[in-house]
Amino acid sequence: MAALRQIDDADTIALAERHLVQPWPVAGSIGAEARTLIGEGDGIYITDGDGKRLIDGPAGMWCTNVGHRRAELAQVMYDQAMALSYNTPWYTMNEPSVVLAERIASHAPGDLDHVFFTTGGSSAVESALRFMQFYNNVRGRPEKKLILSRGGAYHGSTYLSASLNGRPRDLDWMDGAKELVVKLSAPDPFRRPAGLSVEAFEQFLVTEFEETIARVGAERIGAFVGEPVQASGGVIVAPGSYLKRIREICRANDIMYVSDEVVTAFGRLGHVFASKDVFGIEPDIITFAKGVTSGYFPLGGMVVSARLMEDLRKSNHPDAMFGHGLTYSSHPIGCAVALKNLDLLEEGVLAHTRKVAPYFQSQLKKLEELPLVGEVRGVGLMACVECVADRESRNPLQLDKAVGARIDAHCHELGLLVRPLINMCVMSPPLIITESQIDDMVSILREGICRTMDDLRREGVWNG
Amino acid sequence: MAALRQIDDADTIALAERHLVQPWPVAGSIGAEARTLIGEGDGIYITDGDGKRLIDGPAGMWCTNVGHRRAELAQVMYDQAMALSYNTPWYTMNEPSVVLAERIASHAPGDLDHVFFTTGGSSAVESALRFMQFYNNVRGRPEKKLILSRGGAYHGSTYLSASLNGRPRDLDWMDGAKELVVKLSAPDPFRRPAGLSVEAFEQFLVTEFEETIARVGAERIGAFVGEPVQASGGVIVAPGSYLKRIREICRANDIMYVSDEVVTAFGRLGHVFASKDVFGIEPDIITFAKGVTSGYFPLGGMVVSARLMEDLRKSNHPDAMFGHGLTYSSHPIGCAVALKNLDLLEEGVLAHTRKVAPYFQSQLKKLEELPLVGEVRGVGLMACVECVADRESRNPLQLDKAVGARIDAHCHELGLLVRPLINMCVMSPPLIITESQIDDMVSILREGICRTMDDLRREGVWNG
Repeated sequence: MAALRQIDDADTIALAERHLVQPWPVAGSIGAEARTLIGEGDGIYITDGDGKRLIDGPAGMWCTNVGHRRAELAQVMYDQAMALSYNTPWYTMNEPSVVLAERIASHAPGDLDHVFFTTGGSSAVESALRFMQFYNNVRGRPEKKLILSRGGAYHGSTYLSASLNGRPRDLDWMDGAKELVVKLSAPDPFRRPAGLSVEAFEQFLVTEFEETIARVGAERIGAFVGEPVQASGGVIVAPGSYLKRIREICRANDIMYVSDEVVTAFGRLGHVFASKDVFGIEPDIITFAKGVTSGYFPLGGMVVSARLMEDLRKSNHPDAMFGHGLTYSSHPIGCAVALKNLDLLEEGVLAHTRKVAPYFQSQLKKLEELPLVGEVRGVGLMACVECVADRESRNPLQLDKAVGARIDAHCHELGLLVRPLINMCVMSPPLIITESQIDDMVSILREGICRTMDDLRREGVWNG
Repeated sequence: MAALRQIDDADTIALAERHLVQPWPVAGSIGAEARTLIGEGDGIYITDGDGKRLIDGPAGMWCTNVGHRRAELAQVMYDQAMALSYNTPWYTMNEPSVVLAERIASHAPGDLDHVFFTTGGSSAVESALRFMQFYNNVRGRPEKKLILSRGGAYHGSTYLSASLNGRPRDLDWMDGAKELVVKLSAPDPFRRPAGLSVEAFEQFLVTEFEETIARVGAERIGAFVGEPVQASGGVIVAPGSYLKRIREICRANDIMYVSDEVVTAFGRLGHVFASKDVFGIEPDIITFAKGVTSGYFPLGGMVVSARLMEDLRKSNHPDAMFGHGLTYSSHPIGCAVALKNLDLLEEGVLAHTRKVAPYFQSQLKKLEELPLVGEVRGVGLMACVECVADRESRNPLQLDKAVGARIDAHCHELGLLVRPLINMCVMSPPLIITESQIDDMVSILREGICRTMDDLRREGVWNG
């Protein structure tokens, strides 16, 4: 099927430069910038404005899990739009949202069985944080509100959720609720302090966590929010049993553990939720988005522990209102799409993901042969190729144009969209990718890195 | 077409009470509550779980503007999902978002011609506020960040956007960025101080605005955020030329004027935007959501002045990053739905709205004959019937169950869904409503109010 073109590509680019404000722009080009035009998607591929077919390396934005052009999802959108396109969740409810809540609950670990729906990851994290604030107000401990977060984290793009972010540059020019957040070290073994073993680094992180609670006071800390794998921080997989130990410390100190699974839930690691099935932890709240609809519809939400809900229902303030909820909470079309998407995951995509993930990781790992590559790491169908100036110092290259963007430009020529991130290339393709398509992807990425190494040597800025 | 039922209604209700967390719940029933089940929508009607057909009085949540079951919108969702269901706006762009940005810009007043897309009203307001913060950081005046807001306002349900809300109860148990917000009086002529004429009340509001700026200091105030008509505050239409005067004061003090048109844009008042076409003002930023897709898809955004963009591009910090944007910014399906929805508005729905609005207002106005009704007010296709204990005091009735909810219960029996709001009934039906359907709606509402008056007299709590 052809794209639904209304105007030609040159006009599209000219109009974009005059009227469309892109996400995450810089001041120098804000509101005057076009990006690569994408016309069509099919399976793991997207097609750019020149008709070049590209492997969708980041699966959109970690979201197109069951792939592009799934007729089942398009059909359910049409059918639900014709049945009931919208109802106000303030006074009414619809069946798809109820059925979806139950099915999500059935996959969630422990006693997490209450589901609240939003429109994406930022609003999911806002919901979890506002819930924690409300819970502690009703429980009569309004001072228990601080939030623990970590370097390398990404939790959203609203004022409060963004305050938790810990990536370089994210907050340089942005305001945030800094007074509500306590930052901890990134759990990044590759960037651990020199001289420390990975085991010692794990202990360092756990000790820092404990000492921070002792210093700040558990009675002032409402929640810890953490991704099981720090995704856009560079696919940072924490060492050993770090997550389990942090989870136990939170339990011992009555600190809510919010597992931000916006990226990892709904298949990326081969399971509906990764917190328990991959990492062995039972959080108090799980936030989700992205993969829940494979990106076809803006939907997110949180799964909350039955115990926390029960605490509120039994409190002394039954009339206290949780003044929170969006026009598009429990959207009937979004929930219908999510139900069909969950069918696809359960009927084969999850099993396929678990089957190909080891091949994906092992093939990418071979790129560590290349001298520009400092580390390839990952889990499930998410991985990061991190480039370094040299393997000893592990310092990233300081270049006018970041090395990730240079590799991406070569890969685009060769038929692969990369998610470049400063000195890193993040790969998280649609989960339906086959072993032969993984071969294509890795082979293009290898060639893209080799061409970049040639460029850098020619420019005399690197001689690895 | 029948609804897409998977389970029977009794099961749906039981599952909702165990698994679905509704928006805006109270602690005593959070996570254990079912609401009226809606199965189908068609035109201005929705059908509840008992098969009863109801006029959709609030048009969902001020959003189902072109009505339910519009095959054109369902078809475009299907077609765009099969063409391109998602692309990452971080690195790429799609045609529907570009074309939509240009079309929205063509309808926006003054030099507002740059469009940023989000997933709804809360994220639209967050975007405007974070943009103001970024703008003032880049412009070297980081202390210019306070936000003016008013009683009766509703601007969203994220931590920062909710901090602007000024309705009773909204914030009682919720935290907010109170340190960033300066609150002003609600511009509500019906609730003006005793003894003041409407003209004198307008002057009171303007003076309060000026004195607040003088007291706080214009150099500390970044933005004023206001709805042209305070919608969920009770359809509060500000007096006379209040909005124009506020706008001029903001201009004179270099304070961004953010016109929150989440409810009023895309047809509710008969125009794509109401700020200029209805109220004669040119804001610096307009926020929108809801009607932009008639509720079929979560989309919102802001239209920003070319001058503000130009200021940033010419600043001394071209590399400063506006670290803001959502996974679902510029979603291709949402933008395709919005384009088709705009076609429908332009091809007849806007003209129809302007034609029937006077009839809608005049028929509702007749309800002031009823002794329980203190005032009927409104503009375009939004109106509020406010009930009072007596017309002299204008005090609302103090009842165990609010009078709005009582009227709603009777109207539901009679075939109309009302949006009850404490002592008020807000009416904002789909814009395609005909004069004969308006007659049905008003006749049911009248009967619902009459039955409520009978109840109140019988209970001895009111004898008007």
